[in-house]
Amino acid sequence: MKHVLYGKCVKCGKTYAAAPDLTTCECGGILDITYDYDYIKSTLTKDTLAARRNNSMWRYRELLPVEPDTPDPPLRVGWSPLYEAENLARQLGVGKLWVKDDGLNPTASLKDRASAMAVAKAREAGAKVIACSSTGNAASSLAGNAAAAGLKTYIFVPSRAPKGKVAQLMTFGATVISVQGSYEDTFELSKQAIDRWGWYNRNAAINPYLSEGKKTVALEIMEQLNWQVPDYIAISVGDGCTIAGLWKGLKDLHAIGFIDRLPRLISAQAEGCCPLNRAIETGEPWRPMEENTLADSIAVGVPRNADKALMAIRESNGLTVNVSDEEIMAAQKLLGRTCGVFGEPAGVTGTAGVKKLCEQGRLGEHDTVVSVVTGNGLKDVANAIKACGEPISIPADMHLLLDAFAQRGIRVEQ
Amino acid sequence: MKHVLYGKCVKCGKTYAAAPDLTTCECGGILDITYDYDYIKSTLTKDTLAARRNNSMWRYRELLPVEPDTPDPPLRVGWSPLYEAENLARQLGVGKLWVKDDGLNPTASLKDRASAMAVAKAREAGAKVIACSSTGNAASSLAGNAAAAGLKTYIFVPSRAPKGKVAQLMTFGATVISVQGSYEDTFELSKQAIDRWGWYNRNAAINPYLSEGKKTVALEIMEQLNWQVPDYIAISVGDGCTIAGLWKGLKDLHAIGFIDRLPRLISAQAEGCCPLNRAIETGEPWRPMEENTLADSIAVGVPRNADKALMAIRESNGLTVNVSDEEIMAAQKLLGRTCGVFGEPAGVTGTAGVKKLCEQGRLGEHDTVVSVVTGNGLKDVANAIKACGEPISIPADMHLLLDAFAQRGIRVEQ
Repeated sequence: MKHVLYGKCVKCGKTYAAAPDLTTCECGGILDITYDYDYIKSTLTKDTLAARRNNSMWRYRELLPVEPDTPDPPLRVGWSPLYEAENLARQLGVGKLWVKDDGLNPTASLKDRASAMAVAKAREAGAKVIACSSTGNAASSLAGNAAAAGLKTYIFVPSRAPKGKVAQLMTFGATVISVQGSYEDTFELSKQAIDRWGWYNRNAAINPYLSEGKKTVALEIMEQLNWQVPDYIAISVGDGCTIAGLWKGLKDLHAIGFIDRLPRLISAQAEGCCPLNRAIETGEPWRPMEENTLADSIAVGVPRNADKALMAIRESNGLTVNVSDEEIMAAQKLLGRTCGVFGEPAGVTGTAGVKKLCEQGRLGEHDTVVSVVTGNGLKDVANAIKACGEPISIPADMHLLLDAFAQRGIRVEQ
Repeated sequence: MKHVLYGKCVKCGKTYAAAPDLTTCECGGILDITYDYDYIKSTLTKDTLAARRNNSMWRYRELLPVEPDTPDPPLRVGWSPLYEAENLARQLGVGKLWVKDDGLNPTASLKDRASAMAVAKAREAGAKVIACSSTGNAASSLAGNAAAAGLKTYIFVPSRAPKGKVAQLMTFGATVISVQGSYEDTFELSKQAIDRWGWYNRNAAINPYLSEGKKTVALEIMEQLNWQVPDYIAISVGDGCTIAGLWKGLKDLHAIGFIDRLPRLISAQAEGCCPLNRAIETGEPWRPMEENTLADSIAVGVPRNADKALMAIRESNGLTVNVSDEEIMAAQKLLGRTCGVFGEPAGVTGTAGVKKLCEQGRLGEHDTVVSVVTGNGLKDVANAIKACGEPISIPADMHLLLDAFAQRGIRVEQ
């Protein structure tokens, strides 16, 4: 990999050769893959990119830490749509708003970007088995991407994981261990098992390549906006790996001169579980929190990638916003009704944050914002039905239909 | 629309000017949109198509019945991935197999193609409200596509519709009437309501434009195969509109000289509800059947588009195959494990049919087959979990993990 220099510890600065099975620094710090941007500048231009027909995250090969002869993993991950949400922008009172629907990835979440990278690197490492712990989406995306590549998976999820995600795992043929405990407990058991059996590790806070997969969401947003930088990019935050990846992608583009400034990040967490935002807001080190939110994917009381995430929010001069479960579910309906986008609770938390910031006057008519929807609402149908209510239920009779409309005060349009 | 001649009745041959609110013939027959292929040949070449960056169904504008100034509807429908499924082909004993994952459309089914067309035509007609009856997917796709375009929807579904689809409908803000009865009952009530209030009609067997949306799946398959025609294309069949649309797309491409022969269709139905296949197999007119299958999207006892569907299967010298619910759920697991594709029961029925035809020796090593997965498994999680079982559930303890593996006879790979 001529374009990759090394993995560098974000804590102590020690560097490591970029072997495919790289994990953390001996000091315990997380590694960051470091590139030779001068070399990349000499191999990648906006024009070469524009001419590419590969509509997946792998169109950005020059910015990804894989060997030139490593094949693209089988599933078509990335290049999800970016919609300009004019109606929603008007309703919220923000200047311009775009919604990136990453729930349209193959296993229906942004995590496919990291799992595809895990599959690519596991193949380079010659591994036959990949393992991870996950609140659900990393799990189902790993199971799907690995199955397509003929790799076996062992996957640890907390028992609270929604049924949709478990159904995916089982269908993709993973060996699934549902841990009766928190995400923290789940992570620890997976760590012990991975140490014991030497499986390829897809835990995003351990394996430094995974953020590099996630960063492709930033590369796409900017290419889809024709390199016009928005003022803000909003995203939900749990473990911290995704917002760190998003920031990495933006910095990469800045370093190679594709964008001339950096947007500010909006870190959206659930009020019931916001250890990272609390650290930013108080200026104190982060401390563990309970996992009190229905947004299961970001119910992470002990964020495993706090260092990179806090650095990203601070470096970008970012905003933090914490939203209640009610605000999350209201954002789910709002996105559905105005954009035709159905996000899972954690998936729409970024949008809930944008709405709240508008209400607080911290965002307004002069601001341009991208909101990333990180997962599909079909993964957690139970909560959606709770939020939206049940349909009118009647036998097939016109009179009963008229009665039902009248009872509910529905004035029928023509 | 210079490239569109008229709508022509498939029963009596009467033609109608292609107004945007066209429905059925006065004889009750279904209309088929008829094109001026000579004109299309003069405006569309393979090279112009290859150069297009529009990765949605609207890249095929020259073959679609919309006015030149009608805007693309907002959601990015179509251009779903076509995967070559080498492992699965080997397991089944078929020469080559490709899987088209249409569950990755914006609302997670192929029906988005028809609903996007409905939105485009409703706008041309100046309509503010669209209505339909549906087993579920047409409904949720209409609700999502219409919401994104700012149109209101009234939607009729049978009460058996899976929760995932209902959750989508409610989130997209549709007025949903859940009819306590069969799909037939549901269709009749929707018809009465549409007649009464004059809503734009998205029932695919009434509105002749919708098949034209669905046909884009065929256009994409052929472009993705670089115009190399497979021997067969397999798809599940309910109402009959989808297979008719698939065939229309293939015939269009043949008429304009983009492909030099036509593939044979494989019509896959559920054993418990196969009125169209029964008609082909017996040579008798189709008769209604019970709706005895868990594949809800194709549980259609009274197919509304029997004429076009039967014509398509016969014209293509197609194969019919009927599969049991067990065979459907086995195909769901098989696709998940070998391809990382998670389809809903009706979505994988085409693949179940291919498997059965291989077992029967009707398909083999010399045949090349495309199998269309028409909807996402996340829409019907309950059936997937029933088929795949539950994960290992334990507290976070290494000894318990070892016990659980031992009890289940899991030999852990490294």
